[in-house]
Amino acid sequence: MPQKTTIVIIGGVAGGASAATRARRMNESAEIILLEKDEHVSFANCGLPYYIGGEIEQRQKLLVATAELLRQRFQIDVRANQEAIKIDRAGKQLTVRDHLKNEEYALAYDKLILSPGASPLVPPMENANASGVFTLRNLADADKIREHAIKTSARKAVVVGAGFIGLEMVEQFHRLELQVALAELQPQVLPPLDPEMSYPLEKALRDRDVQMYLGDGIASIMTDERGNASGVKLQSGEAATGDLVVLGLGVRPNVQLAKAAGLEIGATGGIAVNRFSQTSDPDIYAVGDAAEYPYGPTGTQMRVPLAGPANRAGRLAGEHAASGCSAEMPDVQGTAVVRVFDQAAAITGLSRKMAARLGIEATSVTIAANHHAGYYPGAKQLALKLVFAPDTGKILGAQCVGVEGVDKRIDVIATAMQFGGNVRQLAGLDLAYAPPFGSAKDPVHMAAFSACNHLDGVDVFLESDADLDGRQVVDVRTPKEVSAKPLAGADDAIPIPLDELRQRMGELDQSRPTVVSCGVGIRAHAAARILRQNGFSDVKNLSGGALVREWAVAKRPNE
Amino acid sequence: MPQKTTIVIIGGVAGGASAATRARRMNESAEIILLEKDEHVSFANCGLPYYIGGEIEQRQKLLVATAELLRQRFQIDVRANQEAIKIDRAGKQLTVRDHLKNEEYALAYDKLILSPGASPLVPPMENANASGVFTLRNLADADKIREHAIKTSARKAVVVGAGFIGLEMVEQFHRLELQVALAELQPQVLPPLDPEMSYPLEKALRDRDVQMYLGDGIASIMTDERGNASGVKLQSGEAATGDLVVLGLGVRPNVQLAKAAGLEIGATGGIAVNRFSQTSDPDIYAVGDAAEYPYGPTGTQMRVPLAGPANRAGRLAGEHAASGCSAEMPDVQGTAVVRVFDQAAAITGLSRKMAARLGIEATSVTIAANHHAGYYPGAKQLALKLVFAPDTGKILGAQCVGVEGVDKRIDVIATAMQFGGNVRQLAGLDLAYAPPFGSAKDPVHMAAFSACNHLDGVDVFLESDADLDGRQVVDVRTPKEVSAKPLAGADDAIPIPLDELRQRMGELDQSRPTVVSCGVGIRAHAAARILRQNGFSDVKNLSGGALVREWAVAKRPNE
Repeated sequence: MPQKTTIVIIGGVAGGASAATRARRMNESAEIILLEKDEHVSFANCGLPYYIGGEIEQRQKLLVATAELLRQRFQIDVRANQEAIKIDRAGKQLTVRDHLKNEEYALAYDKLILSPGASPLVPPMENANASGVFTLRNLADADKIREHAIKTSARKAVVVGAGFIGLEMVEQFHRLELQVALAELQPQVLPPLDPEMSYPLEKALRDRDVQMYLGDGIASIMTDERGNASGVKLQSGEAATGDLVVLGLGVRPNVQLAKAAGLEIGATGGIAVNRFSQTSDPDIYAVGDAAEYPYGPTGTQMRVPLAGPANRAGRLAGEHAASGCSAEMPDVQGTAVVRVFDQAAAITGLSRKMAARLGIEATSVTIAANHHAGYYPGAKQLALKLVFAPDTGKILGAQCVGVEGVDKRIDVIATAMQFGGNVRQLAGLDLAYAPPFGSAKDPVHMAAFSACNHLDGVDVFLESDADLDGRQVVDVRTPKEVSAKPLAGADDAIPIPLDELRQRMGELDQSRPTVVSCGVGIRAHAAARILRQNGFSDVKNLSGGALVREWAVAKRPNE
Repeated sequence: MPQKTTIVIIGGVAGGASAATRARRMNESAEIILLEKDEHVSFANCGLPYYIGGEIEQRQKLLVATAELLRQRFQIDVRANQEAIKIDRAGKQLTVRDHLKNEEYALAYDKLILSPGASPLVPPMENANASGVFTLRNLADADKIREHAIKTSARKAVVVGAGFIGLEMVEQFHRLELQVALAELQPQVLPPLDPEMSYPLEKALRDRDVQMYLGDGIASIMTDERGNASGVKLQSGEAATGDLVVLGLGVRPNVQLAKAAGLEIGATGGIAVNRFSQTSDPDIYAVGDAAEYPYGPTGTQMRVPLAGPANRAGRLAGEHAASGCSAEMPDVQGTAVVRVFDQAAAITGLSRKMAARLGIEATSVTIAANHHAGYYPGAKQLALKLVFAPDTGKILGAQCVGVEGVDKRIDVIATAMQFGGNVRQLAGLDLAYAPPFGSAKDPVHMAAFSACNHLDGVDVFLESDADLDGRQVVDVRTPKEVSAKPLAGADDAIPIPLDELRQRMGELDQSRPTVVSCGVGIRAHAAARILRQNGFSDVKNLSGGALVREWAVAKRPNE
């Protein structure tokens, strides 16, 4: 490697800024040029919703690494408002357009790092560019939304898309005391989750009077007589009216430049790279939302447009470009978390429905447990769904929803997944316990115990949304519990409290396929073991008990 | 295995109750007898301090599984106040003393599970049994302490021993508005931590006017004219006076019964067991505080008197005893957490000092970072020390101290350790990030990045308590920061702000061993890279910067 190598980075923010600073630390003599087509080279894009809602009060706080800092501390030639519009791979040079001077120039590189990000999807429809219609990707977008929401007399916001950003925007508009309508093409909020696990979030939204249009896509954007957005018309024909419309429909990777340069594009539409983030041209790297990553749960390449992987990939690519070597980019599990009012939801790896879509055999158990010792004040219930391979028990993914401790459980499981762990190993983790922090048997253990029981045939679980017709359903809760919340979708459930089951099992038919259920699955486990050892040949435990059953039935297709 | 096997379990609480209930679930026809020498067969012993302090208001809440529930639901023959006093292994029977009837009887077993726990250490000194002197192990102890603290006119409590229980008791006595004195033989609180990591806890205690006697052991217990405890005299000659004395000096495993029966005792003084918790007699199992476990960081057997392992081992032993097979007891990492006022401290695996004591080569890095995105309101700094093998980078342990998110980071690292993970793998974890929950580069990543840099010689760290004499120390913070908090134990540190370092490095001597330091280590990393690439041959980064340096110098031996 020549002493004076020129590294050009296209795109700032997470991937690009991480690449630039690591490159400098690894190579003091390199020329490092950072091109950013927008105004800000590095800002906290994950913080934008919270700035709009005023939770983050100072705009300044979002400017993580200013151009000045990058220049001064890292000797990076920061060029904002400058866009690479062509890559000449043979000549190893770029054509760059300076948007301020409105002129073009050539820029030679030895190593090129592409971090062009992704663009919000905007449906090709009339009025998509009307005043009051927004997407949220950068600080300028956030400024515009904030101004429109605060400085105009906006009373109601329409958010289209109930993914991570959509949900964060709903929460923040509510914080600004706007009425909010939320439309989502899928019949659930937070589509990465399995339907039943999204239900507590949906409830948190409804409890705050968010108007929900689920399973209903956007058909058109409505405008008033002055041409300002006045809401959206949905495919069902319903209209969600509002003074501003935010489109949170997902993102499209910015691969045009790479494509035009003949770089290989992967099966999922991102720029194809190897473990060193090198594209099909080894002098060109790609990181961030436009690139693909090695995806742990499938072992294939996948786009994962999240800040964490972008930061890690950028750092490694910067090192490799600057020094000729680096560690390999590790697997990405697709771990993510979102807060929705008092609820948090987190996911890592595959959901059941994503596994089904990919044709991957998966099974799952769902448990509900307190986030710390139940006897210590303030314990909050969380639900944890563990998805695993039915043969090996390999962990494929997990979902958690609750008020507290959600991120911790998903981080622990994501860590186990990084090591290719299985549910038996999860059951053996040695986690920190004191009453204010956890339980001696943590929710992670409880889920793993259930999964091991399922694999070993000790206690076989039935999916919470299963059709119970034709099965003998035994509800082993107390009469008081049963009458307070009957088991959803199981009108003919036979109520026998667990502590009477040994005496009263004669009331049941041993020969029928039997399902036991309780509050969250613990008592049903004891009941299933009693019945199995007393001649009942086909006994299953309804995963997550009456609690998750209620969510599952509520979110069942066609109900 | 005969259909009607008799399983006798000696000792309730975590290990014994877990064993009994799992045994029942695995074997509906077994006779299961649970002997408990005290009154309560299962209670939340980790909750006792919080009940004493009134944070847990209802005593009832501590009674996790009542004898009635164990009898009714699990058909367990619960025998409270009955103590096994002899094991006849050849005849497979016990001699049991019924403390209520004051008589003895024989009890046959097919499988025996020992869960006798441990007893608080009481120094063999006069007045150890005086009124007002307490240890805390069971509910009766808690009742007595609570009564003494509340119902008498107690004004001041003396806690001897600054381990987990000692610290929890100090916190709870403070909550009861008692003055508190704390004495500890080691020169630090929470001796499992490395000294500098204990400093924030010590500060939290001093800030609440807890009188601290560190590095000072108990010499005698003082009594007043009526024979009631009036404090302790310390080895230094100082006296810590108070109206009650709680001894938190650690525990001694209750191995007398096992020893008398000729069962093998391990090197660490616990009952020796295999991976199925079987003792040297395969029909006798041992779990909980009296047993040894496979200890991950060393691969040897170790006593780990904590609730988590006891619960897991009990569950597995119960299954094995009842069904003839079970999964193996997984490695224990010794993961633990404690809250001390607003601070939390957690540990997993080895500290530096424990590694040194065991003759295990270890190195470490310490970082400080926000528990969630710094730009999002409410971010709190935590410090994370990662201990790893200097050759392979294998994770040996970690310590974390801070206000929020401490348990999460230690759980993640403990999980990686369970898989034999190294610091490079830790750097690649895909953890959940949204501004209210974490950072795109989590503290775990930051610590792992530092460790990788250290291993690769990219940035070599110096221990925070290192002697800096003879080294050229460069403080790269701003003048304002330096004057607000000079670098401890480095009077001749040369202040050159990072952003001026390239211009001013001529002021430094390239040939001298050089140490760079900043606030927490991040800017020093950039500085170290600049100097290393500019002819400075020996540059080290002071681990944890001025922050941890202050703690380390404060806790240095003989200072």
